[in-house]
Amino acid sequence: MTKAAGYVHGYSRHEARRLGDQADILADLLHADTVYPAGSRVLEIGCGVGAQTVHLVAASPGAHIVAVDISGDSLAQARARMTAQAPGAMVTWHRADLFDLPFADGAFDHLFVCFVLEHLPDPASALARLRRVLRPGGTVTVIEGDHGSAFFHPDSAPARAAISCLVRLQSAAGGDALIGRKLQPLLTAAGYRDVVVRPRTVYADETRPTVVGGFTRITFTAMVEAVRNAALAAGLATPAGWDRGIADLHRTAGDGGTFHYTFFKALAVKPSRASP
Amino acid sequence: MTKAAGYVHGYSRHEARRLGDQADILADLLHADTVYPAGSRVLEIGCGVGAQTVHLVAASPGAHIVAVDISGDSLAQARARMTAQAPGAMVTWHRADLFDLPFADGAFDHLFVCFVLEHLPDPASALARLRRVLRPGGTVTVIEGDHGSAFFHPDSAPARAAISCLVRLQSAAGGDALIGRKLQPLLTAAGYRDVVVRPRTVYADETRPTVVGGFTRITFTAMVEAVRNAALAAGLATPAGWDRGIADLHRTAGDGGTFHYTFFKALAVKPSRASP
Repeated sequence: MTKAAGYVHGYSRHEARRLGDQADILADLLHADTVYPAGSRVLEIGCGVGAQTVHLVAASPGAHIVAVDISGDSLAQARARMTAQAPGAMVTWHRADLFDLPFADGAFDHLFVCFVLEHLPDPASALARLRRVLRPGGTVTVIEGDHGSAFFHPDSAPARAAISCLVRLQSAAGGDALIGRKLQPLLTAAGYRDVVVRPRTVYADETRPTVVGGFTRITFTAMVEAVRNAALAAGLATPAGWDRGIADLHRTAGDGGTFHYTFFKALAVKPSRASP
Repeated sequence: MTKAAGYVHGYSRHEARRLGDQADILADLLHADTVYPAGSRVLEIGCGVGAQTVHLVAASPGAHIVAVDISGDSLAQARARMTAQAPGAMVTWHRADLFDLPFADGAFDHLFVCFVLEHLPDPASALARLRRVLRPGGTVTVIEGDHGSAFFHPDSAPARAAISCLVRLQSAAGGDALIGRKLQPLLTAAGYRDVVVRPRTVYADETRPTVVGGFTRITFTAMVEAVRNAALAAGLATPAGWDRGIADLHRTAGDGGTFHYTFFKALAVKPSRASP
């Protein structure tokens, strides 16, 4: 059975906070239009530290949300986050491998999969396998980024090289940081229909200080910065080259700088007569 | 005085049709929210063959539109296009250099500049110079692409190299195919205020055949293909490498392929007390 690949971003407390900040800032862009009816059964795959779960609950307070993750530590943090932010929320937590879910066929009306496929060696198999627990006619929502969508001003070869290090590390860990552009073919190949994928673009310039601070600095640049040691250890960068790249990324958050990044959000349906 | 740089795309009849197709397909995305009040005086800079002008006229039938271009041949084609598509349109055509416009200070309520700055050696000076003919409180609308925003599935190094050839040729001709990301700092530096820039993204996959055909194939890939001879003559590509890159671009328009490209649209205001 295929297992989840290594998680390139690590499990530190600092990383948990970064994921929380990221989810808050991106909530409107990525999640505002995901609203599940009261009483519907929703399965969040790979909830991690609950960064997206709190937004699911806020947007769909009447839905029955089940959140699974393969990491017990992450689930403990997710519970704590939810207790602090939404104490009365109807969330059930399960530690489980998404390739071996402890749920009956068709147990859920909706699946929610955010920033998960990018870390899997075989996202196509994962999507196909997940179909089993979705009822015919139920929906799957998938959200992923694509680091190839990052471009900025001033442009910088060292900054592009630093981002490329993250892409290569994620690839070496069995993941794919360029997966956003592949969501439509992945979902179609996995047997879903009515696949609709749309870009969700973050654009920052000095007229939007909240986006500059909240995305360019503390989400994207911080994510790249966090793999410094791994990049150097893998021989993908020199210390001087790396530091120049990070400095140049920070420069895109200064006056006159701009930054562009695209997420992709997909919605698809499980056919009524699905093959297993 | 700075002059317009070489126009990398050329002036052929084939190119004129490509520009027309492109403008039609992108009209909703780029122009739908540009509506000028009846009686307002609008100056379109660098109208070329009138590809955008027909959409300006359609959206703002009561505005007085003046369109200028440095090429008499292009203007002739623009007139013919307008006569065919909107015979009663209130458009006045002028052959003029945008650095030496034959209009009084403050003669216009609005400026419209689409796919022009990318071809100029000094777009900052152009924007600053244009301010003279805009009345205080009047608006400037600027639309540009950014070829660094192009990414696709399946990814392909030869396809990226072919795009890079176009970027380098445009740069060698004095232009900048990566200008979209710079619009906010350019407009701010040129003395405009209330600068608002937003990405306008084209995303194509097999579920959107109109976009695949209309953008990936006949707009973007055709634009790259058109510089084959120039790229080979400049020694930027080998025939085999080039043809592979173009074939791979076409492959992104096939089943399971995806394509992403971002335009930027800017709106800014001339301050009431502007320095010249």
